[in-house]
Amino acid sequence: MTKMNDKREAARAAAAYVEEGMVVGLGSGSTVSLMIAEIAGKAKNITVIPASSQTYLECVNAGLTLTTLDRHPQPDIYLDSFDQVDRARNMIKGGGAALMREKVLATASRKRIFAGTYSKVVDRLNRPVPLEVLPFALGYVVSLLREKQASPRLRDSDAKNGPTVTDNGNYILDVDFGEIEEPSVLEAWLRKVPGVLENGLFVGLADRVLIAYGGGFVEEL
Amino acid sequence: MTKMNDKREAARAAAAYVEEGMVVGLGSGSTVSLMIAEIAGKAKNITVIPASSQTYLECVNAGLTLTTLDRHPQPDIYLDSFDQVDRARNMIKGGGAALMREKVLATASRKRIFAGTYSKVVDRLNRPVPLEVLPFALGYVVSLLREKQASPRLRDSDAKNGPTVTDNGNYILDVDFGEIEEPSVLEAWLRKVPGVLENGLFVGLADRVLIAYGGGFVEEL
Repeated sequence: MTKMNDKREAARAAAAYVEEGMVVGLGSGSTVSLMIAEIAGKAKNITVIPASSQTYLECVNAGLTLTTLDRHPQPDIYLDSFDQVDRARNMIKGGGAALMREKVLATASRKRIFAGTYSKVVDRLNRPVPLEVLPFALGYVVSLLREKQASPRLRDSDAKNGPTVTDNGNYILDVDFGEIEEPSVLEAWLRKVPGVLENGLFVGLADRVLIAYGGGFVEEL
Repeated sequence: MTKMNDKREAARAAAAYVEEGMVVGLGSGSTVSLMIAEIAGKAKNITVIPASSQTYLECVNAGLTLTTLDRHPQPDIYLDSFDQVDRARNMIKGGGAALMREKVLATASRKRIFAGTYSKVVDRLNRPVPLEVLPFALGYVVSLLREKQASPRLRDSDAKNGPTVTDNGNYILDVDFGEIEEPSVLEAWLRKVPGVLENGLFVGLADRVLIAYGGGFVEEL
């Protein structure tokens, strides 16, 4: 339960940035679920834009007021967590397959707060990077990545036959690039590949990264 | 009928590059329909990958053998047309909303032949550039483009209420950038915008551009 308590501390610290009347973009995942509970508890005229179907349903259940980027193209604040973060605040996201809308929403927002536990902090990013891939392009993208000595793995689904399908109707490739020396260079390269609709490297997007170190101790990275 | 004859000459010249046993990527549009007829007429053990639902159905009707990028990640040749082309062989595509799969397929292919009529040749590209946009991101992308003094227009549908939906389930923004001074710079910028899944600028992708000047006269640009 310690890990859960740490997540809750991280979520609470992030939710503290939410002020009355704000439009709040929300990422996706177990830490974001805790943020939603925090926000719903203090809801003072707050409106939310969820980045995933999971977050959407949780916001509906929490009774929060929903809006969209068409109505509010620039949310006041974005709250989310990450799968891994380095000391330069580069992150890997997409374990929950919500990376594409998360990156849109984070980029659109005025201020971006990410929060997570100390176990996710590394000196150098080394998790597989999730890519959202157009199903039509799968064979091409896999072949290109193998040429570049990367190891792509099509994410399978636990709950249906065949691959995971994202909220946007695409596939997820989890791509092992080993230790990532220059996340911004890799991110820029991935953006150039047609059929790779988005990648899980979040570079230069975090205004604040809040880390829960345990025992209620939360500090900025 | 002269314009139709010119298109047919362009299609015939492109189809002449197809050799026995080849895997052929096919774009989309009225000139590609004529290419399909040419290829079906001489079909010598040819296999095709269609870039759009329209091209797919035409290939089925023509009795051509189908394959996919998963089976053939690197097609031998790609045939397509364009909406506009400049003297440096930069193109604008996407009038038929098929730009995303077209760019994947063109990029994946070993050799790329584009063919069209002289009426589409310009000194400087100036048509609105079609973008394939994630519906979730629409409000953000429109707002960003307006900040950049561009004029985005959501493509309406003639045959259903509301916006055109692409073969991939997304929207099309036709964006007027005026005269495009540096297509490669604009293309690179558009690739960086989350939610813009693909853009209709084809830069550095044409190995040959065949232009029908009328009267059966076809020449490389």
